[in-house]
Amino acid sequence: MKVHILTIGDEILIGQTVDTNSAWMGEQLNLIGAEVVEITSVRDTEKAILGGLSHAKENADVVLITGGLGPTKDDITKKVVANYFGVNLRFDEPTYERIQRIFERMGRKTTENHRSQCMVPENATLLPNKMGTAPGMWFEENGKVFVSMPGVPYEMKYLMENEVIPRLKDQFPAFPIIHKTILTAGVGETFLAELVKDFEADLPENMSLAYLPSLGEVRLRLTGRGGDAKDLEAELEVKSRELYELVKPHVFGWGKAKLAEALGAICREKKLMIGTAESCTGGNVGHEITLIPGSSEYFNGGVISYSYELKTRLLGVRESTLSMYGAVSEETVQEMAIGALQALEVDVAVAISGIAGPGGGTDEKPVGTVWFAVANKNNIKTYKLQLGKDRDKNIAFSTNYAMFILYKFIQNNY
Amino acid sequence: MKVHILTIGDEILIGQTVDTNSAWMGEQLNLIGAEVVEITSVRDTEKAILGGLSHAKENADVVLITGGLGPTKDDITKKVVANYFGVNLRFDEPTYERIQRIFERMGRKTTENHRSQCMVPENATLLPNKMGTAPGMWFEENGKVFVSMPGVPYEMKYLMENEVIPRLKDQFPAFPIIHKTILTAGVGETFLAELVKDFEADLPENMSLAYLPSLGEVRLRLTGRGGDAKDLEAELEVKSRELYELVKPHVFGWGKAKLAEALGAICREKKLMIGTAESCTGGNVGHEITLIPGSSEYFNGGVISYSYELKTRLLGVRESTLSMYGAVSEETVQEMAIGALQALEVDVAVAISGIAGPGGGTDEKPVGTVWFAVANKNNIKTYKLQLGKDRDKNIAFSTNYAMFILYKFIQNNY
Repeated sequence: MKVHILTIGDEILIGQTVDTNSAWMGEQLNLIGAEVVEITSVRDTEKAILGGLSHAKENADVVLITGGLGPTKDDITKKVVANYFGVNLRFDEPTYERIQRIFERMGRKTTENHRSQCMVPENATLLPNKMGTAPGMWFEENGKVFVSMPGVPYEMKYLMENEVIPRLKDQFPAFPIIHKTILTAGVGETFLAELVKDFEADLPENMSLAYLPSLGEVRLRLTGRGGDAKDLEAELEVKSRELYELVKPHVFGWGKAKLAEALGAICREKKLMIGTAESCTGGNVGHEITLIPGSSEYFNGGVISYSYELKTRLLGVRESTLSMYGAVSEETVQEMAIGALQALEVDVAVAISGIAGPGGGTDEKPVGTVWFAVANKNNIKTYKLQLGKDRDKNIAFSTNYAMFILYKFIQNNY
Repeated sequence: MKVHILTIGDEILIGQTVDTNSAWMGEQLNLIGAEVVEITSVRDTEKAILGGLSHAKENADVVLITGGLGPTKDDITKKVVANYFGVNLRFDEPTYERIQRIFERMGRKTTENHRSQCMVPENATLLPNKMGTAPGMWFEENGKVFVSMPGVPYEMKYLMENEVIPRLKDQFPAFPIIHKTILTAGVGETFLAELVKDFEADLPENMSLAYLPSLGEVRLRLTGRGGDAKDLEAELEVKSRELYELVKPHVFGWGKAKLAEALGAICREKKLMIGTAESCTGGNVGHEITLIPGSSEYFNGGVISYSYELKTRLLGVRESTLSMYGAVSEETVQEMAIGALQALEVDVAVAISGIAGPGGGTDEKPVGTVWFAVANKNNIKTYKLQLGKDRDKNIAFSTNYAMFILYKFIQNNY
């Protein structure tokens, strides 16, 4: 199945909005074995949309259209699509009733504008959109499929997951394709590749391994294709377990989980309170941990001891340690972590101190030097990373690394 | 001038990379009065690239190509472009010498692969790329311009700013276009629109005002077009000052500055140390402040008092205040801010406590309720926001709001 993604909207062409929808759709389509052959963004004029539709269908079986369905742009897009197919618009009563019910619940009245939202091309099959007022629309012509969705990311994602992808799988049955993803952190792609070299070389022809790196994390995605779906699932289960054993010390989960979620889950499971003592990450570890809803159940809090004085004052790091070894040292992060256990009243604490850059480096401790410690009342472990010169990347990488060593410490000690 | 942006690379079509380059280019081109008519992403195969080039030139004067110049994809892209123009590749000696010099400085030797990086289509004008090894390439055919650049964002940006945009301005002289951008925070688009309603209605025909909102911030961009460049600059200077006076209480800067940068600049100017006491933002205010290089000069540190106990233990919030008014209250944030002044040894402190959601709301204090306080030893100001239900957005919005009230407090009190 070849897919063309067509994005409609001036806001993308003038750079006001980054098109993140297409990347998300590309990833989802790739997972079901569809090939995205092209992504096109056009202005929201009649001429541009018609041109986009004609061009899109040339090299694809399926054209997925997003955007151009906002309240003010509503009419032109639907009119252009109707015009493209040579049909009229009709009023869809069920859609109107649904919008009325939503507004009644909010104690508000619908306006004339809402009636116009219910005009749809006669040949459209409507896809229910539980996340918004505008339904998705499915069209078929000469064996090709066109789908129009709103550009609002969570509405588009809802429609893709619940309506579009299941229908595409039915309409374009492909050989089975199954993925198993192992989530790792703390080591690079090259390091992992070395560990799994033999495994990868011996993979059967119908399987492939992809390394998907992002700051401080690498997802290992094992994909199997073809044959009987049940057999494939069983084969993949065996192979992914083999892979897991090879990289086990670096794994924090399977599938789509985020590192902060995995950390939260293990804290809940072991009934532990955690805390953070941050210097160069400036609060970002606390931020990432608390992005997870309900994190107050296991995260008590943290200290951002950016200055020397606060390392001493809030965490009890000795002045002699700071003057002898400096703020970026194994000795200092050890004292920060131990101090945090007490100051924050937690079971496990992580401490981070480094030189994020671009300034502040020396020959002995260049920019990118970062020390970590993780401790409970019986144990302490320290780590050192030598990162690059990019401040934002150093902070992001160190943040992920801190969460990962915290996760592993809990896994190994409780 | 009509521009088509063509992005080459499988990584975009399978969703591994979000195409942020095109949005950045779209914004820059819009600023010089060019119209981006379409953005297209194609695979890195010969057929797809040829198809993309033919399609792109149909409706544009200029085709800007990014990507497909990586070390492994080098040959195919350049071969396809040469093939498209019907020319051969030639070896460019100066490029090779430059690469050799770079490698000598690093104490390394060039490889055969570097020689192939120096093969360029015969009809290319080379654009020096100080950020990488592959030069940009400029082509002209039948009055149309094609430019090929690497996909690495900082290399592309360097080439756009230093080579491509100046050349495009020469080759396609347009009427002058000038922008003045006023940066505001803390209030919404609708609120600002009401303030500047009359100003906007009375703008001369050659000027327009754009509202560019992002979480907690709105950029007001005044654009003037046409006539004599010097006169236009003078007119725009007058009008932008008028606009500034209308929205002054909400302004934190001009042009491209970030809120955290503006905060840093005013702290340096007034020689102040600041600190943070965060609850619902979980460390993100500290993180945003410390993303700015050199922030240790004015940011002493912070406390992430996520739990009740830590609000008391680290910031001295009275237990009676917490039990009587709750953690999300004016009384609590006041005590947090005052406690932070002492605990963090700073001149000015900001405190944030709220219900980020999705859980934790009550009828009296629904999800999205956030209290703020900013204090020095003589003054304290409090603020309350009622935000929405989205945890990530509430955190991001509250973070910007905290930095903004800190900025305004310093501006008004020092």
